[in-house]
Amino acid sequence: MGPIPPAYRGEDGMLLIAGCGAAALADEAGDTPLFVYDAAMLDDRVAALRAVLPGRCDVHYAMKANPFAPLLRHMAGIVDGFDIASSGELEMALKAGVGSERISFAGPGKRDAELAMALDHGVTVHLESEGEAARLLAQADRIGKTPRVAVRVNPDFDLKGSGMRMGGGAKPFGVDAERAPALARRMIDVGAEWRGWHIFAGSQSLDGEAIIAMQAATVELAGRLSEDVGAAPPLVNLGGGFGVPYFPGDRALDIAPIGAALAEAIAGATDMLSESHFALELGRWLVGEAGVYLTRVIDVKQSHGETFAVVDGGLHHQLAASGNFGTVVRRNYPVAIANRFGEAPAERPVSIVGCLCTPLDRLADQVLLPSVEVGDIVAIFMAGAYGASASPATFLGHEPASQLLLTRDGDCLFD
Amino acid sequence: MGPIPPAYRGEDGMLLIAGCGAAALADEAGDTPLFVYDAAMLDDRVAALRAVLPGRCDVHYAMKANPFAPLLRHMAGIVDGFDIASSGELEMALKAGVGSERISFAGPGKRDAELAMALDHGVTVHLESEGEAARLLAQADRIGKTPRVAVRVNPDFDLKGSGMRMGGGAKPFGVDAERAPALARRMIDVGAEWRGWHIFAGSQSLDGEAIIAMQAATVELAGRLSEDVGAAPPLVNLGGGFGVPYFPGDRALDIAPIGAALAEAIAGATDMLSESHFALELGRWLVGEAGVYLTRVIDVKQSHGETFAVVDGGLHHQLAASGNFGTVVRRNYPVAIANRFGEAPAERPVSIVGCLCTPLDRLADQVLLPSVEVGDIVAIFMAGAYGASASPATFLGHEPASQLLLTRDGDCLFD
Repeated sequence: MGPIPPAYRGEDGMLLIAGCGAAALADEAGDTPLFVYDAAMLDDRVAALRAVLPGRCDVHYAMKANPFAPLLRHMAGIVDGFDIASSGELEMALKAGVGSERISFAGPGKRDAELAMALDHGVTVHLESEGEAARLLAQADRIGKTPRVAVRVNPDFDLKGSGMRMGGGAKPFGVDAERAPALARRMIDVGAEWRGWHIFAGSQSLDGEAIIAMQAATVELAGRLSEDVGAAPPLVNLGGGFGVPYFPGDRALDIAPIGAALAEAIAGATDMLSESHFALELGRWLVGEAGVYLTRVIDVKQSHGETFAVVDGGLHHQLAASGNFGTVVRRNYPVAIANRFGEAPAERPVSIVGCLCTPLDRLADQVLLPSVEVGDIVAIFMAGAYGASASPATFLGHEPASQLLLTRDGDCLFD
Repeated sequence: MGPIPPAYRGEDGMLLIAGCGAAALADEAGDTPLFVYDAAMLDDRVAALRAVLPGRCDVHYAMKANPFAPLLRHMAGIVDGFDIASSGELEMALKAGVGSERISFAGPGKRDAELAMALDHGVTVHLESEGEAARLLAQADRIGKTPRVAVRVNPDFDLKGSGMRMGGGAKPFGVDAERAPALARRMIDVGAEWRGWHIFAGSQSLDGEAIIAMQAATVELAGRLSEDVGAAPPLVNLGGGFGVPYFPGDRALDIAPIGAALAEAIAGATDMLSESHFALELGRWLVGEAGVYLTRVIDVKQSHGETFAVVDGGLHHQLAASGNFGTVVRRNYPVAIANRFGEAPAERPVSIVGCLCTPLDRLADQVLLPSVEVGDIVAIFMAGAYGASASPATFLGHEPASQLLLTRDGDCLFD
């Protein structure tokens, strides 16, 4: 299985999350399963990133990674901008106290009503096509608002080794690089407020060298496009790409050399970018490690010499851990028995299966864990991103999982 | 792409579903995206099955395939039993008018509260392990009810060519065949009402010969287990396994020889089964073809010579069509432009992508369709099973899809 994030430790055999025992957290929530998020880990993550980034580079949160309301409110206080992908996310961001001037809206399928809502709030719209630009201008005319726009660019390069390639070749995202300057020029000419470029080449890479190369290419591309347009971009969104370790052999990124290389790339950029700000748009890397999914063992059973621990949660809450969301080969997320944390593993492996009546619902396949009993609490790590909101919660008619954010002050926020 | 089910036809270039034009249905729902289900197709499916099954074999609906309330009410009137997998599904089945004596409850992770609810309503519980049996008896003692039980058996064989193997080797479902008689005997001895066996070896097979062999083996196993116990089972649930065609090259099952072979297997069974009833437990095969997902084109764009049609729906409603649910290699579901139904395809292919800002959200990859324009309605077929309820509806903050059932009388039921 993948590596348990080093920040987690146990006390008297019980996994602690933000200083609280896992079993006590399940009691606090009333029942398992639940997602627990640690606000201090979010703070630490953002602070670590800021410490290595050049001063002209902001930190944005891609809220699709986790839209749990208390977590959004917390993130609103520690990042510079929010990247949203729907009018539903816009409502959530505004409700979390994010000022609309800090919000940017990307996504290939924005409806007219969503564009109108973005205009109404003065949110920056990342244009994904010439057709979308025309629809935005039509909405702007209709409601009498000046659009704030950036152009999302489909770059000619991708992020090597990334889990999801979002640039390079034919893509549904953004405008091909060679057509981007013309679109930007047109928007400036019709009086739109020009906000700059959004260039997102890939995500979930653990290859620091590849990220460095991608960022250098992105800064270079942004400079070249800006010269073509003849207008300086106030902001260049460099996308994300920072991966987190999920699987055996994965190693956490070393962000210090990435920050140093980015500072160099920005310092060496064309004069056209000398006044521009930059931003990294991160979701998974900011919140993934700060979340743990806790689910209780209902049954332990033997079948043909193998042991299965059946839990009260499953893929309806944590689809990605079952290997059914964006992964081709099923591998094991880091997992532990929360109330036997640090104990030596049993001699024989156990498979953790969810309560759904389908063979897809396998959360850990033949892992070595301490001997499991009914009532034990299984912890699945790396559950802070693309967990509760990215899973089919109503499948088979079970209840959704509880979610809670633990603050530095020891508060436990459920909504 | 996969074959469009032959029951669907067009009129004046518009796809008809239960005699209604797709565009009119979208208007009726208020907006796209929506799922439309055709009640007459459900009737036809059940009738076709009954016509080939022996008289002693009932038809059960595995409601996990589609729990939409109007569809449940309709199915309640045409099948013999409902198979449920959670207390949430029990509530839905009861609300749909299914008598509790017709309900059976399988699933490897039943909580104590769910077992108590099943006891309270007199639902048949399919025991998945010795541990679950002990927990059920404890609940029965506590509330003073006699449990009605069947034993779910993990058979020593699987269903060849099935999409999901649920038997053969170590499995989280049921009790290994060699331990099943002892568990059944114990339940009978303590006074439980003995309901029989549940033997489910696999699902989604398009190989008729394999299904025939599996059913014969299942009847034989049920006979052997019953002789070991020394008690006749009132009901033998033979599981499902009937697949539907999703992908290129898939061909619909011919059920006539399956029914004939099953009749023969039952007629030739051991005397111990001479008074037993049998049941097929089907979900996908009963409802899959009767559903169509309709989603509107928001944008048509070019990237590096490829054409993308971006729609207002996506994997948050129809995860399986994106290839992210139980399939290793992504292949295309049958798809059409509903308002250009029957038109000749354009010369160049188009990819249908959802509105989510992730490369996973691809509903059809480079398919040949009539030339697509903004405002067109895309129909994705085979959406009646494992669609709305098996997708991450809240992902990226979009609205859920509407759902509606069209009755034979022309009524349009939304809930």
